[in-house]
Amino acid sequence: MEKIINPERRSWSQITKRPEVDNSDLRGIVEGVFADVRAQGDSALKLYTEKFDKVVLENFVASKEEVETAISRVSSDLKAAIELAASNIEKFHASQALAINEVETVAGVKCWQEARPIEKVGIYIPGGTAPLFSTVLMLAIPAKIAGCKEIILCTPPNQEGKVANEILYAAQLTGVDRIFKVGGIQAIAALTFGTESISKVDKIFGPGNQYVTAAKQAATQYGLAIDMPAGPSELLVMSDANGNPAFIASDLLSQAEHGADSQVIFVTNDQAMLSKVETQVEKQIEVLPRRDIAKLAIANSRLVSFESDQDILDFINAYGPEHYILSAENEEFFLKNLISAGSVFIGNYTPESAGDYASGTNHTLPTNGYAKAYSGVNLDSFTKKITFQKITSQGIQAIGPAIELMAEAEGLQAHKNAVTLRLAELNK
Amino acid sequence: MEKIINPERRSWSQITKRPEVDNSDLRGIVEGVFADVRAQGDSALKLYTEKFDKVVLENFVASKEEVETAISRVSSDLKAAIELAASNIEKFHASQALAINEVETVAGVKCWQEARPIEKVGIYIPGGTAPLFSTVLMLAIPAKIAGCKEIILCTPPNQEGKVANEILYAAQLTGVDRIFKVGGIQAIAALTFGTESISKVDKIFGPGNQYVTAAKQAATQYGLAIDMPAGPSELLVMSDANGNPAFIASDLLSQAEHGADSQVIFVTNDQAMLSKVETQVEKQIEVLPRRDIAKLAIANSRLVSFESDQDILDFINAYGPEHYILSAENEEFFLKNLISAGSVFIGNYTPESAGDYASGTNHTLPTNGYAKAYSGVNLDSFTKKITFQKITSQGIQAIGPAIELMAEAEGLQAHKNAVTLRLAELNK
Repeated sequence: MEKIINPERRSWSQITKRPEVDNSDLRGIVEGVFADVRAQGDSALKLYTEKFDKVVLENFVASKEEVETAISRVSSDLKAAIELAASNIEKFHASQALAINEVETVAGVKCWQEARPIEKVGIYIPGGTAPLFSTVLMLAIPAKIAGCKEIILCTPPNQEGKVANEILYAAQLTGVDRIFKVGGIQAIAALTFGTESISKVDKIFGPGNQYVTAAKQAATQYGLAIDMPAGPSELLVMSDANGNPAFIASDLLSQAEHGADSQVIFVTNDQAMLSKVETQVEKQIEVLPRRDIAKLAIANSRLVSFESDQDILDFINAYGPEHYILSAENEEFFLKNLISAGSVFIGNYTPESAGDYASGTNHTLPTNGYAKAYSGVNLDSFTKKITFQKITSQGIQAIGPAIELMAEAEGLQAHKNAVTLRLAELNK
Repeated sequence: MEKIINPERRSWSQITKRPEVDNSDLRGIVEGVFADVRAQGDSALKLYTEKFDKVVLENFVASKEEVETAISRVSSDLKAAIELAASNIEKFHASQALAINEVETVAGVKCWQEARPIEKVGIYIPGGTAPLFSTVLMLAIPAKIAGCKEIILCTPPNQEGKVANEILYAAQLTGVDRIFKVGGIQAIAALTFGTESISKVDKIFGPGNQYVTAAKQAATQYGLAIDMPAGPSELLVMSDANGNPAFIASDLLSQAEHGADSQVIFVTNDQAMLSKVETQVEKQIEVLPRRDIAKLAIANSRLVSFESDQDILDFINAYGPEHYILSAENEEFFLKNLISAGSVFIGNYTPESAGDYASGTNHTLPTNGYAKAYSGVNLDSFTKKITFQKITSQGIQAIGPAIELMAEAEGLQAHKNAVTLRLAELNK
């Protein structure tokens, strides 16, 4: 692990740099699959599922029987754990509902916003060895709270044509409407154009490999919205001398095990912490099943100490971490002045894992510095806010003349006329 | 104008279809300008400004003197109108601020969201004959309320190297930090990469022609956020027999004068209204300075009558209009069940012009059916919401075992360890 002591500001952009991910070479592959799915529908899905997932499926829908069997195979302990997590996620996301707040900007001119659900949403859940059923909770629960009318889940089948039991359980628990055993670019294409069996949706959510990421980008070219641009996951931990090096190391490693390209940064105002944390990382990493992956990520990670808290704060804001764990005496300073982060974990007993699974916050968060301009997934992500205005005859008389002047100055006479006609009618 | 009586549902997708805008042929041009501005900075801006705007500028900044001169040239009547509009826009957008709402999902597990400003935002304002100073208000006012630290405005100079007085006045009134006389693809490239004189920003807002639109799309490939995808402007008016055909026609025309590709649709449950509205459109259009543009848009517009209100409602939701004017006895039915629209104008005295300028709502709205998944610009657009969680020792003991089980089931042992270590410490 690279230790950096009091780096000068001009070197920060180097330290906070993310690996460049260039998906442009995938554009051709994505365009090919999109064209085929658009033209051939389900039969293209079958072909690509055979090609990429090595299984021939006659029907992509996870049947009722299949779901029931899966549910019966999830242990009751795990079910209880998932239900606790689901309950917390539901509480927190339900609290995010927009209250209608009518404002009378001028007497007779009332304006307000209301959130309405996005009708059809698609949720992509990756397959592979680790079934990410927690992501089903993070996406389907707020979709349901928002009132989305159709929640469609796509996830790749394994070579036996099956999907992990836990994914089917989580989907059933959260009220997913339809589950399709289709993955990769072809799943995103199906959600983009619709096929005989899969409906076109308005917005696509969920993580995925570089192919899925490139396919989601392509979907935006066809009018769909996506949750956010994707990049490798990342964590920044800030701690002063009071932090617990073992806890900190465990947090850094829980990020590092995600993938070789995961980013992990430790920042402190106590130089002695650097070696303490490093020692703990080296000790804990050896017993991890995914240590080969974690070691690659840790090799690229940085332990940084600064002399001033202001430098630390500025450094964190310059980085804009997806996950940010903070354990410091003067936590108020770091919280109040924080500008960019995805999700913040405060104190010694708030590991990132808590937010990944069960505290109630969402784990679909902006990576790659996107925290500077994007929110993580929340209830808003499944709605759009519509503005309403209702103007009385008194109201249009109050603001009408201003509108006429402004419209005229912009050279838009018809805009002016729409007011002039109404004012004339009222002055009759 | 095409009149359509009681169209069958299967024909709706045809009636609600927008013109396809394909910017892919602009990709090469955009990439060229982006590469030059990235490599050459201001000198590339100079070159492209000379090429596209036909003026050689030594300095892109609108100087203090220039701004003061411009301000002195705006009439006091227009200034008062702009100030009234600004005041209403400020009131409504300030009311959208997120209240912090802490939720204790489980005893000892507190979660909340806070909005933080996007630090650096760029506002693009088109040049040309009609100076769109109202858009300066719509973008700079919420940026200022959000607390954005740097608000940069780019707008193309005319052949004398000048910018419209009203734009400079509005920029000064709303607290824009820096005004640059740079337009087109090169302006978007400058905001994307930064140059010697223009800072790189985090998010770009504002309308523009097809080149600007394609350039904003390209900016997203370099990690920037944009307000929303763009398309031609559109309006749907719904009225029953009580609507005023002259008012309705004036509203349709105020949309039609925007551009030949503007979309205008009138929907009613009273077939007799179709001809009444058409007659008024034909009468009013003749006196418009922009009638040649308006006639092209009107030629593509549709007057549609339905027998059932439910059909009307479904048709409107299928269309997802950017602007939606509603004048009907049973307005509650149409409001309560509305799913997709950008901004809604209710009643006979609420013309679209009101929201375009001065009611307080924003006029930067989703077009092209994007209202199904996107909100218009609002205060949220200039912030991101960060989630926070703080867990006590009691809290982690409550949810820790569930996290351990879920992490293990997902094959993420390090995620589990981060909890196990803490629980062990507490059980010592």
